[in-house]
Amino acid sequence: MVGAGPGDEGLITVRGWDYLKEAEVIVYDHLANVTLLSRASERAEKIYVGKKEGAHTLPQGEINRLLVKKAEEGKKVVRLKGGDPFIFGRGGEEAEFLSQAGIELEIVPGVTSAVAVPAYAGIPLTHRRITSTLGFITGHQDPAKGGSGIAWEKISTGLGTLVFLMGVKNLPGIVKRLLSHGRSGDTPVAVIRQGTLPEQETVVGSLSSIVAEVEKRELKPPAVIVVGEVVGLRDKLKWFEKKPLLGKRIVVTRARAQAGKLSRKLRAEGAKVIEFPTIKIAPPQSYQGLDEALREIGNYRWIIFTSSNGVEYFMKRLRGKGKDLRHLAPCRIGAIGEGTAKTLSDYGINPDFVPREYSSEGLVKEFPEKDLSGQHILIPRAEVAPPDLPQSLTHRELR
Amino acid sequence: MVGAGPGDEGLITVRGWDYLKEAEVIVYDHLANVTLLSRASERAEKIYVGKKEGAHTLPQGEINRLLVKKAEEGKKVVRLKGGDPFIFGRGGEEAEFLSQAGIELEIVPGVTSAVAVPAYAGIPLTHRRITSTLGFITGHQDPAKGGSGIAWEKISTGLGTLVFLMGVKNLPGIVKRLLSHGRSGDTPVAVIRQGTLPEQETVVGSLSSIVAEVEKRELKPPAVIVVGEVVGLRDKLKWFEKKPLLGKRIVVTRARAQAGKLSRKLRAEGAKVIEFPTIKIAPPQSYQGLDEALREIGNYRWIIFTSSNGVEYFMKRLRGKGKDLRHLAPCRIGAIGEGTAKTLSDYGINPDFVPREYSSEGLVKEFPEKDLSGQHILIPRAEVAPPDLPQSLTHRELR
Repeated sequence: MVGAGPGDEGLITVRGWDYLKEAEVIVYDHLANVTLLSRASERAEKIYVGKKEGAHTLPQGEINRLLVKKAEEGKKVVRLKGGDPFIFGRGGEEAEFLSQAGIELEIVPGVTSAVAVPAYAGIPLTHRRITSTLGFITGHQDPAKGGSGIAWEKISTGLGTLVFLMGVKNLPGIVKRLLSHGRSGDTPVAVIRQGTLPEQETVVGSLSSIVAEVEKRELKPPAVIVVGEVVGLRDKLKWFEKKPLLGKRIVVTRARAQAGKLSRKLRAEGAKVIEFPTIKIAPPQSYQGLDEALREIGNYRWIIFTSSNGVEYFMKRLRGKGKDLRHLAPCRIGAIGEGTAKTLSDYGINPDFVPREYSSEGLVKEFPEKDLSGQHILIPRAEVAPPDLPQSLTHRELR
Repeated sequence: MVGAGPGDEGLITVRGWDYLKEAEVIVYDHLANVTLLSRASERAEKIYVGKKEGAHTLPQGEINRLLVKKAEEGKKVVRLKGGDPFIFGRGGEEAEFLSQAGIELEIVPGVTSAVAVPAYAGIPLTHRRITSTLGFITGHQDPAKGGSGIAWEKISTGLGTLVFLMGVKNLPGIVKRLLSHGRSGDTPVAVIRQGTLPEQETVVGSLSSIVAEVEKRELKPPAVIVVGEVVGLRDKLKWFEKKPLLGKRIVVTRARAQAGKLSRKLRAEGAKVIEFPTIKIAPPQSYQGLDEALREIGNYRWIIFTSSNGVEYFMKRLRGKGKDLRHLAPCRIGAIGEGTAKTLSDYGINPDFVPREYSSEGLVKEFPEKDLSGQHILIPRAEVAPPDLPQSLTHRELR
């Protein structure tokens, strides 16, 4: 049972990340960051059992039985839950069921939204000068209905900081209870939606004004509500909402295998990156030509690589034939582009020629040998194919 | 400002881990897991500013100024704090100071001990059937002294689950306050020491009995105290304390670069692994012989690698000379041992000969060519040197 963290992909734990990559089955929730799933093994079976408010996709009992069934098949199952599995996530119930069924269980705690979302809004929940008590309350049930089991008369003034999870829908009821049980109308309140994600939005007010503020900004659930003097520290401490690309939606169209590095850099500046590969790099449709060239490699004076993918497929084939780079000793090797040269270097090849100008023209102009008449040159290439459209992204992010 | 998590090395976040590896300066606390530091860059300056109870190594003001100074030198500084930086860690104060000094700040929340330590003891802090409210309280100040700012009359019965951090020393005072403000003596209590680490120890009792139980077991601080009905779930849910190697101290003496994989496997079964390399692999004292051989490579019929380290240093030198594997085309390549063959393969070399028996005898017996008279054979080796003793381990773990 793995906590996925509050949303920001970088806030999953190292262990959680490892298990996600090893998992054979991943059973996940609405709240988990979907981009995490794209980092899991492609072969893993991914089952969505998320519950949106008012529309339970799968009843809890069925989730429990599904987990037991997959585990009993001997599969490595990751139950991925938003935030921490044991903080208002019904992880306790699922763990109880699994334990009773005799399933071997491991808990990988996660960074809970209750802590991280305020931190991303610049709000430390505790502060020596301000408070040494902190309460987490599920705002799921409407306080107006009663029977919520919440001792409002005590918590309203008994704790320095209060954090309500899943409470935006019931915000008016929560505020009313707090006020009627003695919490001052001046108490600062923050409501943070989509916390830790590039879409993060924070509305700040006081207990007296926050309901109107949230209505004005049309803030929708889910969100985290923080009540207490610590909210005032936000003015000094907000850091995430200052990021230069915050909330900008940027589509990265590179082939999936190449997109990661660019995406990471953009995300670090706050961008909402949508990886939507418009091409897919595929192996050549036939290796016949390459195989012939490899058999007669002594005939080739030069091998010119024009792309990293070309290098990858060439090396894969060479190794598949039981050969290594010693086989290429008769040839000199050229690379067009820094990336291509870098990939060659990763394979231990020190290219003999990299034109300063990254183009066919550059190649010809700067080529170190002027007389190539009658010589064979090998130019290995990858093929470009239409991409497999990423299902989760098309459905959930591109709407 | 990076949360190191509760102790278990795997519970740091992926982003925290990345920053730790990139850091030029790491300012760390007593609570952070010291093995994390050994994963950071060797070149990073590591400054210990930890505070043990009663013995402040560095006053808070000096920590603040140190952080500003290092940041103003243009260094990438990681302020590593145990658990989450904003939960009773004085991270809020440090962030305030840095922000006022105009330092660019990023918060990487961590898995807080308040949540993860109970989870490792099999206690989910919330449970739909049991409670929807949860309080975190610093138990740092002795409640007997008064003026702690804690509204005992409200929190004692106002919250389903109560978690006290840093409160073991004051356990009797905490229990007395809770009882005198109406919390039932039957309420289950757990005190967890060294939570999430292989030394984890849990003492369970009721509010009436816990002080005696803790005394009997001689449990020392720091520890996490959990009060509430959720403690009862531990009987079903405890998973970590069932690990087969839990608490066993195992010293791994392999060279540091090779120790990681074995250590990880042992840790996953609950062992307390102490990496204490008794050897260190070093480059050859002189490359003269190898350089000569590389110049006259055509004279060598075979290169026989006897260790992974031999492969590493050979390849480093070959590349340093601006050459690649094509240079070795005149030679056939042999490897003794699966690990050596694997490392060759990582460098793209497909060895021509790997004896089934991993020894010099096996090599001679199975050698594919019987007549080697007059032939040159190159055998690259690494040197074995005495290790650099790991300071932090000798001081803090081997006592």
